[in-house]
Amino acid sequence: MVTIKDVAREAGVSPATVSRVINGTAKVDINKKNKVFETIKQLEFKPNEVARSLIKKSSKSIGLIIPSIINPYFNQIAEDVEKTANKHNYKTILCNSNGDFNKEKAYIESLQLSNIDGFLIISENEELEKFLECVNVPVVALDRYFFKPENNALKYSIVKTDNYLGGQMAAQHLINCGCRRIAHIRGPENSVIATERVHGFQNVLNENHMDYLILASSYTFEDGLSASYRLLHEHPEIDGVFAGNDLIGISLIKAAYIENRKIPDQLQIVGYDNILFSELVTPSLTTIAQPINTMGETATELLLPQIVGSSIKNEKIILPIKLIERETTKKKTE
Amino acid sequence: MVTIKDVAREAGVSPATVSRVINGTAKVDINKKNKVFETIKQLEFKPNEVARSLIKKSSKSIGLIIPSIINPYFNQIAEDVEKTANKHNYKTILCNSNGDFNKEKAYIESLQLSNIDGFLIISENEELEKFLECVNVPVVALDRYFFKPENNALKYSIVKTDNYLGGQMAAQHLINCGCRRIAHIRGPENSVIATERVHGFQNVLNENHMDYLILASSYTFEDGLSASYRLLHEHPEIDGVFAGNDLIGISLIKAAYIENRKIPDQLQIVGYDNILFSELVTPSLTTIAQPINTMGETATELLLPQIVGSSIKNEKIILPIKLIERETTKKKTE
Repeated sequence: MVTIKDVAREAGVSPATVSRVINGTAKVDINKKNKVFETIKQLEFKPNEVARSLIKKSSKSIGLIIPSIINPYFNQIAEDVEKTANKHNYKTILCNSNGDFNKEKAYIESLQLSNIDGFLIISENEELEKFLECVNVPVVALDRYFFKPENNALKYSIVKTDNYLGGQMAAQHLINCGCRRIAHIRGPENSVIATERVHGFQNVLNENHMDYLILASSYTFEDGLSASYRLLHEHPEIDGVFAGNDLIGISLIKAAYIENRKIPDQLQIVGYDNILFSELVTPSLTTIAQPINTMGETATELLLPQIVGSSIKNEKIILPIKLIERETTKKKTE
Repeated sequence: MVTIKDVAREAGVSPATVSRVINGTAKVDINKKNKVFETIKQLEFKPNEVARSLIKKSSKSIGLIIPSIINPYFNQIAEDVEKTANKHNYKTILCNSNGDFNKEKAYIESLQLSNIDGFLIISENEELEKFLECVNVPVVALDRYFFKPENNALKYSIVKTDNYLGGQMAAQHLINCGCRRIAHIRGPENSVIATERVHGFQNVLNENHMDYLILASSYTFEDGLSASYRLLHEHPEIDGVFAGNDLIGISLIKAAYIENRKIPDQLQIVGYDNILFSELVTPSLTTIAQPINTMGETATELLLPQIVGSSIKNEKIILPIKLIERETTKKKTE
């Protein structure tokens, strides 16, 4: 039987490095990692056996790091992760970082001490990339990147959607519905996914030779509400809004109701995410639906094989999004 | 200086028992516990010093066990716990049990291995009481009981509200608004807090010599929706509904909208909790507001002193609730 030492010798690295690669960690230089993968293939080495042979304490738990406990989008993802993990007899430990790198770090360090088996991380903090080099359990990125994906060498598996396309779809739908003065209330300035949505939106407006307004906000209801009032008071000419997420969209419905602006006759709105409440508010919110019900499941199904050592390959999975037309938009020609 | 051994000798128990009592655990028989407290007072022993003298690994983390990750009520409590814990440099580890005792047990055991410093538990599972006897960190019950509170000897601190009163307030408001055929869509059959709300509701209806209808549901949106359709189809005479929580109330607004039943003219609704979305739906939901923004803070502020050993006393804190009148109810005489 081929041993871990044989692989190490052949690949010119230490046995510890091989075991790190097999356990899906980020600690290893990408060139060394590729070399180890090649050697494993060449020697027909079965990582599954190694995984079993490595004495490793397991808590049968995965850690899920989310950037908000209040936004239902993340709660719905968390529920989905938990159901999937549970099916495989894993527990889910949930940590809310509020998007703060220091909190992410503290939670990850703390859970490592308790023999956590792996992490699902929803974060855009690039500092994480370096920090995770010292983390010796598998990690899967969810919904967004905290690392720069290189061409053919992914540091981690990632499950996400195409936010640029989502921005395009939202803008195109507003134009199709007859809106002529269109605004976007964007998510946080430093967020890549928020910026991708902005770029997709801009692309469609530019191609249609239309002016547009971008309003700053964050993804919270409170900031969305304040941006919504700013929009209604300072830019009464706007007849179509792409809200950066559903919480912002719902806040705009609220503000428009209070300011007596008729939806969709005077103002049309497209949200983003398709959280449960986007359907429940009145008028119900047209939105770009993310695959909330499969995102957590897909990421968990990618992570678990890395934990037990039956998979060593990192994958990038882009899940489809779709427009759901509800009552905040309406084709004017109809 | 008085030592832990002096207290043990005087109280007729082992030093380990004294340390368990000081650490706020449930492992100790209530009579022994009281004896230890008396002796501590008598000898003017300062638990603070003991706490410091006990060599105990800390992860500077508290575990929060919630029964649902989807109901915004618990998310808002979790955010509040986290903010408070964070102020004191503690992390919050969130675990969703779905109300299942085996999951609660698994999470508590797992977090104990990682030197968790204490637990906040939202649960009604009575099996927890016995299980927690083997848990050697402080525990505070939140929102509901998992143990039988005895007259003057509380096993744990608890922070909750008066659900019986809440049920009374909801029923009284519907009557004040002119409703004559009133129904209650209740929470889970086996839930004490749901049953307390039912009893408060029944008390007011009985005192007013009015018939009433009770419909079974759980606290989820899906079950609430199914009960709402049952109510609208099978009991069209009902003109006022006390919904067991806001998710049920919001589901009834949705069902009434689809069935073209006018709110509040044909049907009035009172919810329970005052989650963020109760204000955002249209019509906005009249509700019995729980002190969501102080409940988590209060419980955390009770737990932390028990963790550092500066408090050994268990307290029962009943936080006030209030009626918030919105658009789903309306006084008919006005």
